[in-house]
Amino acid sequence: MNKKCIVLLSGGLDSTTVLKIAQKDFEVVPIVFDYGQRHRFEILAAKKIATQNGLKAKLIKIDLKQFGNSALTADIEVPKNQEIGNEIPVTYVPVRNTIFLSYALAYCEVEKIYDIFIGVNALDYSGYPDCRPEFISSFETMANLATKFTQNNKKIKIHTPLIDLSKSEIISTGVKLGIDYSSTHSCYDPDKNGRACKECDACILRSNGFKKANINDPTVYQ
Amino acid sequence: MNKKCIVLLSGGLDSTTVLKIAQKDFEVVPIVFDYGQRHRFEILAAKKIATQNGLKAKLIKIDLKQFGNSALTADIEVPKNQEIGNEIPVTYVPVRNTIFLSYALAYCEVEKIYDIFIGVNALDYSGYPDCRPEFISSFETMANLATKFTQNNKKIKIHTPLIDLSKSEIISTGVKLGIDYSSTHSCYDPDKNGRACKECDACILRSNGFKKANINDPTVYQ
Repeated sequence: MNKKCIVLLSGGLDSTTVLKIAQKDFEVVPIVFDYGQRHRFEILAAKKIATQNGLKAKLIKIDLKQFGNSALTADIEVPKNQEIGNEIPVTYVPVRNTIFLSYALAYCEVEKIYDIFIGVNALDYSGYPDCRPEFISSFETMANLATKFTQNNKKIKIHTPLIDLSKSEIISTGVKLGIDYSSTHSCYDPDKNGRACKECDACILRSNGFKKANINDPTVYQ
Repeated sequence: MNKKCIVLLSGGLDSTTVLKIAQKDFEVVPIVFDYGQRHRFEILAAKKIATQNGLKAKLIKIDLKQFGNSALTADIEVPKNQEIGNEIPVTYVPVRNTIFLSYALAYCEVEKIYDIFIGVNALDYSGYPDCRPEFISSFETMANLATKFTQNNKKIKIHTPLIDLSKSEIISTGVKLGIDYSSTHSCYDPDKNGRACKECDACILRSNGFKKANINDPTVYQ
């Protein structure tokens, strides 16, 4: 039997690709966070993707709304058609990946799992500080000092298979692995039927990725 | 007006001392975690201590019971009269300080606070990995890479004023600062009236601390 690993599954394009990559070598436990995000459709997408891959998602409920201050958790408008990469946008959720990885680490310690996969990438992204390789590497160092089960030469490893890939490379990789991206949800500001806005950062990065990869974009837009 | 800082306040002897130390130089925001601990009295103690110091505790509710695996959160007996320091005991809560500090960091980022105080000490303690100086230092490094508000040369600092103090030195320090330790709660296994068991690690370290400091122990025992 394969070793177990955690995959942080958001229901988006990146984490779904990571799940498929991880399944090549590991028995995957997908962790899905309900953190109070306004775009609830991604939670439904994540659960569906887990099921499609023969897995049961572990849902962890945490409340990041109590901190607010982000267009994803508070009553702040999601910016549309903005230039990407100039500055960190208001869709940044303070300390989200740190909190997600900390919970994943607690689950790892209890279940004796040493591998965590996360779909961060630092190329076609919005400039969030907690997506950069230096953040991931410092979290890994901290994680190995924080825990009891890593004292005996067994170490936590945080895998970031997408870190250096462009969005189109991620999509091409996923398609080769058999992913049907129509189940994934990226839009920060969907309508009530879950249809994508096509104008937020997440939509723009996704849509450009399909174009560059020369692959038909299966996203349903408003 | 003083700069603001966060103090992680558990209601125990250590964090109460830290609060008083921090108040010398900062306007303190005490954060109290209701994490599903079985010894609920410490939450009441923490709120009371905040009030006694003219502060309002910010209560953050998180659920570490979902991970269990500790005598403090699951149905596991609190060990009594055991030798302290031989191995990490079952009262260790997986990844607790990492999760606490991550939430504190989120609060810091939203409120633009750069100083966090935590009452860890690595001398008279139970050997928890997330109380060691190397853990704290690695968390601080990670915190500065994780966040948006630390990009412009302003850095998060994690203060651990007790890290090298023995329990008796902590008590002596606190008494000089005017702390009445009768409001603090340390016991992992109090009776239904909140009276301490005198036999768990927390009670033993505390009681020995008062003895060595030659200060009357105000704890109410069963």
